[in-house]
Amino acid sequence: MENFRFSMPTEIIFGKGTEKEVGAETRKIGARILLHYGSERIRKSGLFDTVVRSLKGAGVEFEVLGGVQPNPRLGLVKEGIRICREKKLDAILAVGGGSAIDSAKAIGVGVPYGGDVWDFYTEKAKPTATLPVGVVLTIPAAGSEASQSSVITKEEGNYKRPLDIGLIRPRFAILNPELTYTLPPFQTAAGAADIMSHIIERYFTNVDHVDLTDRLCEATLATVIHNVPIALAEPTNYHARAEIMWAGAIAHNDLLSTGRVGDWATHMIEHELSALYDVTHGAGLAVVFPAWMRFTFRHDLKRFVQFAVRVWGVEEDFGEPERTALEGIERLKAYWKSTGLPVTLGELGVPTDRLEEMAKRAVSYGPVGHFITIDKREALEVLKLAG
Amino acid sequence: MENFRFSMPTEIIFGKGTEKEVGAETRKIGARILLHYGSERIRKSGLFDTVVRSLKGAGVEFEVLGGVQPNPRLGLVKEGIRICREKKLDAILAVGGGSAIDSAKAIGVGVPYGGDVWDFYTEKAKPTATLPVGVVLTIPAAGSEASQSSVITKEEGNYKRPLDIGLIRPRFAILNPELTYTLPPFQTAAGAADIMSHIIERYFTNVDHVDLTDRLCEATLATVIHNVPIALAEPTNYHARAEIMWAGAIAHNDLLSTGRVGDWATHMIEHELSALYDVTHGAGLAVVFPAWMRFTFRHDLKRFVQFAVRVWGVEEDFGEPERTALEGIERLKAYWKSTGLPVTLGELGVPTDRLEEMAKRAVSYGPVGHFITIDKREALEVLKLAG
Repeated sequence: MENFRFSMPTEIIFGKGTEKEVGAETRKIGARILLHYGSERIRKSGLFDTVVRSLKGAGVEFEVLGGVQPNPRLGLVKEGIRICREKKLDAILAVGGGSAIDSAKAIGVGVPYGGDVWDFYTEKAKPTATLPVGVVLTIPAAGSEASQSSVITKEEGNYKRPLDIGLIRPRFAILNPELTYTLPPFQTAAGAADIMSHIIERYFTNVDHVDLTDRLCEATLATVIHNVPIALAEPTNYHARAEIMWAGAIAHNDLLSTGRVGDWATHMIEHELSALYDVTHGAGLAVVFPAWMRFTFRHDLKRFVQFAVRVWGVEEDFGEPERTALEGIERLKAYWKSTGLPVTLGELGVPTDRLEEMAKRAVSYGPVGHFITIDKREALEVLKLAG
Repeated sequence: MENFRFSMPTEIIFGKGTEKEVGAETRKIGARILLHYGSERIRKSGLFDTVVRSLKGAGVEFEVLGGVQPNPRLGLVKEGIRICREKKLDAILAVGGGSAIDSAKAIGVGVPYGGDVWDFYTEKAKPTATLPVGVVLTIPAAGSEASQSSVITKEEGNYKRPLDIGLIRPRFAILNPELTYTLPPFQTAAGAADIMSHIIERYFTNVDHVDLTDRLCEATLATVIHNVPIALAEPTNYHARAEIMWAGAIAHNDLLSTGRVGDWATHMIEHELSALYDVTHGAGLAVVFPAWMRFTFRHDLKRFVQFAVRVWGVEEDFGEPERTALEGIERLKAYWKSTGLPVTLGELGVPTDRLEEMAKRAVSYGPVGHFITIDKREALEVLKLAG
């Protein structure tokens, strides 16, 4: 186990009807806020009205900025920064999924910064101040509600880049599983693949003796694996939706990284799929991860055997552990397929004529991955295995 | 799953050599502090000098109050309150195990309070302010380093009572597993039993559909079960000590309670053993818990079967599930015995002539327990089963 620092200061407010508490919670972090959201489904579902009523009831004034797209864009972030400055707003409330939250985080660090907020996403500068961000979550997937990550896409050149820093963790996050009842099956499955991927990225580490976090990872994975088919079959099953929603926050709040170093090459490669073809992040991950695993499993066979045995209940072949490891990878792939996700580039609708370009872009800031180092050649291999 | 609120704001600073950071961390919460500790082993081991050097290096002034005993006493808490007021101290640093930390928390809420600090432990009043508390942990057991609990014993009448409120969570906690190398085997085992008990108290719940937290509980239990025998055989095995230490904080920081209601009757009954006979808390729990389990297992047989199968790897007897449940309880008892702990009142050195008195005192504020409700008669039954 490596030395680490960890805290999880985001106040999680979890359960039925909790969105009605948003006014009182928001008032604790600001009096004049930016209400930031993505899809107009927020308005159609009535959630927008509930939030507005609660904000007004708590005496919170607000400006509205909707229109966040999946793979949230830098342009809208800059628009949000402009509004916050012009109207002298002191906090941001994101209502939606990871895209709205990531966009809110970017606006938050952009407002007090003199330069271009994109500097933070290219490691040219490090944010030192932010407007506080609150969240009402509608899609369990990105884990952004309790994470220190934000991923933004710059339209010009289609660059999708992450920012990771404790400063940007939301101050509170309201998680009502009922709000996820209307998620279509594909979004439910893709969100779950995103959650699982956050765990799997952390699971494959070269740090040894990480017993507790291994088991916590396996526990969280097992919960998602068990509950997603239930939620797909019974979209209004509160219990299944609740397990997935809480697992989504745990998966990415960094508890599961404590004392270990995750990989994250798959996320970097997938970001290029999303940037060029605007595919759903979770679906892209379902395509890239099994390919990455087949590319890397010999690097630490024992870890892949553990993954197969403990997560998928594969019967261990002690004589030929490669069989066990490969069976684990196949089970993951079959599982994702069974939930309606694509598991090849073809199924994802991504042509194979720009693989070289994607491989090159994935490593444009240097090699990626910690479990094994991936440069352009290896990234291309992974993408070919995903074909 | 029930609605819940959760955050874990304590900054955990984990790993080798981290006690050297105590000055800088303490400076963030205070400039003039009370350095509070228990055993003189802190001085003999050199840890006291390291802490003092680090505090001085960071420009932190301090008063010293040692002598915290296991089952920390109200008298010393009041002495600490007096010193803090007289010297106008603004924070408390606890160096030690749960007793020193619990005592520091009590001093923290006592300083700004006009009345008797014992009011908070008898639910006569609720604390609304505290001096901030920092921690250097030397014994993984109580989980007080990241918990919202403090347990204090009032000498007059030997009353041992808990206070539970988010306000008293430490602001930071330094956890260096190396500091636990010199823990004697009995303290290592008793500390582990305390950690396991914190999880087991949460595990036995009547709230259904608590899949994720069930699995996180099982994961944390499995980690402790696996690593304690290693630490006992190899006291300086960093990896085993690290797993136990991190598990100890996770076990009691309330992540494992999210969405569920724990039981806690066993803790209340054990508190009376500790109060009357000053036994080691973890050893007392190792005696009471198997007895409580035999008393309650028919209340929810399926849960006890799950405990046996998932935690202890008992082969399930589908035809006679009672056998599986009882086998799980026996495995727990045998495990604790194998680590050198007493598992009966006799082995603990507690005579059986005051069981009625203990039963009566355990429920002096009303029935205890949530999984099943325990009043005096049931508490006596449990104590008799522990005989």
